[in-house]
Amino acid sequence: MNEAVATLEGWYALHDFRTIDWHAWKAADDEERAGAIDELNALIHDWQAVSNDGSGSTVLYTVVGQKADFMMMHLRETLEDLNAIENEFNKTTFASFTKKSYSYVSIVELSSYMASHVEGDPMENPHILARLKPALPDSRYICFYPMNKTRNLGDNWYMLPMDERREMIRSHGLIGRSYAGKVKQIITGSVGLDDWEWGVTLFADDALQFKKLVYEMRFDEASARFGEFGSFYVGSMLDTAKFEEMLKL
Amino acid sequence: MNEAVATLEGWYALHDFRTIDWHAWKAADDEERAGAIDELNALIHDWQAVSNDGSGSTVLYTVVGQKADFMMMHLRETLEDLNAIENEFNKTTFASFTKKSYSYVSIVELSSYMASHVEGDPMENPHILARLKPALPDSRYICFYPMNKTRNLGDNWYMLPMDERREMIRSHGLIGRSYAGKVKQIITGSVGLDDWEWGVTLFADDALQFKKLVYEMRFDEASARFGEFGSFYVGSMLDTAKFEEMLKL
Amino acid sequence: MNEAVATLEGWYALHDFRTIDWHAWKAADDEERAGAIDELNALIHDWQAVSNDGSGSTVLYTVVGQKADFMMMHLRETLEDLNAIENEFNKTTFASFTKKSYSYVSIVELSSYMASHVEGDPMENPHILARLKPALPDSRYICFYPMNKTRNLGDNWYMLPMDERREMIRSHGLIGRSYAGKVKQIITGSVGLDDWEWGVTLFADDALQFKKLVYEMRFDEASARFGEFGSFYVGSMLDTAKFEEMLKL
Amino acid sequence: MNEAVATLEGWYALHDFRTIDWHAWKAADDEERAGAIDELNALIHDWQAVSNDGSGSTVLYTVVGQKADFMMMHLRETLEDLNAIENEFNKTTFASFTKKSYSYVSIVELSSYMASHVEGDPMENPHILARLKPALPDSRYICFYPMNKTRNLGDNWYMLPMDERREMIRSHGLIGRSYAGKVKQIITGSVGLDDWEWGVTLFADDALQFKKLVYEMRFDEASARFGEFGSFYVGSMLDTAKFEEMLKL
Amino acid sequence: MNEAVATLEGWYALHDFRTIDWHAWKAADDEERAGAIDELNALIHDWQAVSNDGSGSTVLYTVVGQKADFMMMHLRETLEDLNAIENEFNKTTFASFTKKSYSYVSIVELSSYMASHVEGDPMENPHILARLKPALPDSRYICFYPMNKTRNLGDNWYMLPMDERREMIRSHGLIGRSYAGKVKQIITGSVGLDDWEWGVTLFADDALQFKKLVYEMRFDEASARFGEFGSFYVGSMLDTAKFEEMLKL
Repeated sequence: MNEAVATLEGWYALHDFRTIDWHAWKAADDEERAGAIDELNALIHDWQAVSNDGSGSTVLYTVVGQKADFMMMHLRETLEDLNAIENEFNKTTFASFTKKSYSYVSIVELSSYMASHVEGDPMENPHILARLKPALPDSRYICFYPMNKTRNLGDNWYMLPMDERREMIRSHGLIGRSYAGKVKQIITGSVGLDDWEWGVTLFADDALQFKKLVYEMRFDEASARFGEFGSFYVGSMLDTAKFEEMLKL
Repeated sequence: MNEAVATLEGWYALHDFRTIDWHAWKAADDEERAGAIDELNALIHDWQAVSNDGSGSTVLYTVVGQKADFMMMHLRETLEDLNAIENEFNKTTFASFTKKSYSYVSIVELSSYMASHVEGDPMENPHILARLKPALPDSRYICFYPMNKTRNLGDNWYMLPMDERREMIRSHGLIGRSYAGKVKQIITGSVGLDDWEWGVTLFADDALQFKKLVYEMRFDEASARFGEFGSFYVGSMLDTAKFEEMLKL
Repeated sequence: MNEAVATLEGWYALHDFRTIDWHAWKAADDEERAGAIDELNALIHDWQAVSNDGSGSTVLYTVVGQKADFMMMHLRETLEDLNAIENEFNKTTFASFTKKSYSYVSIVELSSYMASHVEGDPMENPHILARLKPALPDSRYICFYPMNKTRNLGDNWYMLPMDERREMIRSHGLIGRSYAGKVKQIITGSVGLDDWEWGVTLFADDALQFKKLVYEMRFDEASARFGEFGSFYVGSMLDTAKFEEMLKL
Repeated sequence: MNEAVATLEGWYALHDFRTIDWHAWKAADDEERAGAIDELNALIHDWQAVSNDGSGSTVLYTVVGQKADFMMMHLRETLEDLNAIENEFNKTTFASFTKKSYSYVSIVELSSYMASHVEGDPMENPHILARLKPALPDSRYICFYPMNKTRNLGDNWYMLPMDERREMIRSHGLIGRSYAGKVKQIITGSVGLDDWEWGVTLFADDALQFKKLVYEMRFDEASARFGEFGSFYVGSMLDTAKFEEMLKL
Repeated sequence: MNEAVATLEGWYALHDFRTIDWHAWKAADDEERAGAIDELNALIHDWQAVSNDGSGSTVLYTVVGQKADFMMMHLRETLEDLNAIENEFNKTTFASFTKKSYSYVSIVELSSYMASHVEGDPMENPHILARLKPALPDSRYICFYPMNKTRNLGDNWYMLPMDERREMIRSHGLIGRSYAGKVKQIITGSVGLDDWEWGVTLFADDALQFKKLVYEMRFDEASARFGEFGSFYVGSMLDTAKFEEMLKL
């Protein structure tokens, strides 16, 4: 048996993508639409309060193209918290004007491939806790994609010795660090929780940096030989004002 | 021809995942919803009675994310029993407010890779019967996924000699045992019954243990080279009170 | 060019899987449901008459799980016959309460890998005709799945010399024969007719034998290296009384 | 760079598969159905007129199984012609009782692998023109499937020298020719036009010949190692009388 | 780590494919249809104005076959611009008569594999800017497809040395150049933006040139070994007059 890398986990994450049923939205009357928006705003304010008191974090973004119209990304302490958020949203009037597009369940993860030595219990270390239970940034753009490490005959990540994996992750990390200040990255693990092994959520004020970063990494052996990618979702930041603007007929 | 491992089988299993049609549920009136919940509760009590008299076992869990809203896992003596449960549920008023999401048909299985020597007919052995016809636990969380052993050129599980398979299963079992008390696992075989070769159902009071266990196993050769995984479903325990809470508008 | 094995063909086969629209069925009134059942029974009796006069064979089975609610398996002399059956069913009132789930078009096939020497025209031989134009059994359970032989680089069935294929088929046949009396198997060829190369339909009075047989075969080289499998459907026998019972609200 | 084979192209082809919405058809009243059939017949007569004056060709066939209820195969001079046919059909009342199932866009193609030497401009040669702009036969049965040549590591058709490809195509052609008088084949190229590289349309008065031909070819290296196949559609010839019969309730 | 090729990026691109709900369109009354067309025409004129002032470019084409009825291709300065176009279209009455079929998000890209040496900042060079922010041609036909470079064991584009990649791209470019005057090609990069690595949009006055070009390239090693292709969409140019003609009942 090969040596598994140790990981630390923080908040559970739900990425929740939805499509607006524009036909139904246009068919509703002004009062119904206004009521739906008020109820949605109240919900967003509740989520904002959770972000403010540090017991979780929620951001909203549009999605460009037909995959979805918008996404909600929630970080919370437990799976029950995420389930409750889903159900609460589904019970709103506004949800009746949307359809489910895609979702992803995972948990914020730090792996120890690159870990600097930490004194004492890492879950008591404020620096590590800030990464495991992060306040999501309000960058202009978001990019989300799920990924696996391949297990395809000779290209099998999980059969590599720890040293080779560590070296590749180190090289990969160097690319990531060269985008410091341009792209912020949150890795969430989903082995045993959803259909891919990881979710990657990127935040940037210039969407082109998503392409630059992911393309540069693709030539790195860790991605070139061992990365397997799902769908990519990109969009721009939504607050209640922008959401209302999007919904205004 | 290669030597097939012997297996023992117990109860048939149906994992039945459903999505709530929230739009229709909200459009119903109070009386209709109350009637639907009463009928659902009566059905759940019937299933509980079967669990109580030991002629089967049923548990209910939510599902986090958009794959489904809840799942029902039923163990029964025959396929006809499972079919009857499906039909009875489908005929309820509540079922009209749900959509089918996914299902899995299998049978509780013990393989003899690791079998300790049992005197006499194993199907008369109470310890083995308790594993083949188990009372499903009421853990806080569930995780379900279907899986295959690969048959991909050089990575072909079914072309390996029995000894190599046994050694890998032994190593795999050691990881499983190290989670004793944290994760309870039920293996159901589905070769000839459904689209994957096995279903794995995990129960735990800490959902993070699902991730820890499945991730650690992924580095083990039995999974790394020979495991092929379908969708993962996770959720939290439902009883009639929690179900009503979930459905309350 | 490699030597193709000779085959004999008999009746065309249509496996027709349907899902009941329970919501619509519950919304119908008693009279409408009674009329739909009467019309369905009349159709089933017509099919039974065809079975009785030996010009074809039809059986009905439930399907366990969400893939479908029931299946109809028809054997007939021509594709037009099968098309006519489909259209006749689609025109019934009952069909309006069902949705299409899956179908498979094939033709009963005997391959000459294992053929004993037959004197004269095999299509005049009563033993062979009984296998090419069989009366489908009324076993308690059915199992259907489509399959291919792989053509994946080194694992390419169609590039093997006839002798190697014959030896593997012989070994495969030995397993099949060891289930004589427990599992009856009908092979239908579908190269040029549907999306897989063969359909396999198994009948048994003990559903566990499907699992035992398919699992044992999976360790046989013909399956282990060269078998590629589609979805598996299992269910239990339906006659008009059981069908009515299933539909009773 | 490898040597590409030269091709000649004739009429563009649209294979258009549709499913009948029997529920809506049954719900319509007699007058509506009669009007829809009259309009459909007028359209079929227009297509027949085009076939008669040699500026295109159209045939109609049923499809057996649930993939579709019928197909229309159109050959025309330009993509705009095909688009116009689609739109005209979609605007009919009858189209409102159908759903789209599948379509395929391609162009009749002759490759020069086997070309005998032709004097002068091949597009002026009547024999070649008759194959590039063919009158589709009114055989009893049709079979359609799309296909690719593989590009999978060692099994890469496009990396083979011209000589090897020519030899394999020659062997393949010999099988095809042995079915002369039994199966007529139209090859349409779809590289750059649709999702597979070719469409194959077979016509025969005995549907079993589709299976015999495609199965025999599968053992030929050109198919065994290099053929990749999509869905197969089979059905029987439709004229206005048979179409009306099919639609009669 | 392998050397990544440098790229220049221009306008963001949205390919937006839609299917007409002919049933609903036919069910609308004349006034509703006329209003929908007027509103659509106004939108098309707005897009035309953007094309005219050089701050973006939009073209409309039909799509042949069932994949879609028409496509809109938009080039704009930001993702927010594309999102706004989508939302504006979705809010129109005409959009209520359409369904989403497919979309693609990317950005116009020039790679430096073949770059001639440019003095100074390339983003100030008018020749380069004209290629990064192009006026889309009004050719008679369009062809769109997404693609990847493979990463499959020995056929892994991203593990090749820069020199080998450059040589293959050079050879590929020679084919492209031999179609100068016949096919105009726009490459858009979508790594980090959508599910494939590139989108290819071809324009031609003779649709057969799409097939000729893509087929010839398939024998070139860059495609033969390293090209992985998604769905192909072809269609013919739409202006407001042709759009009205298409929609006229």
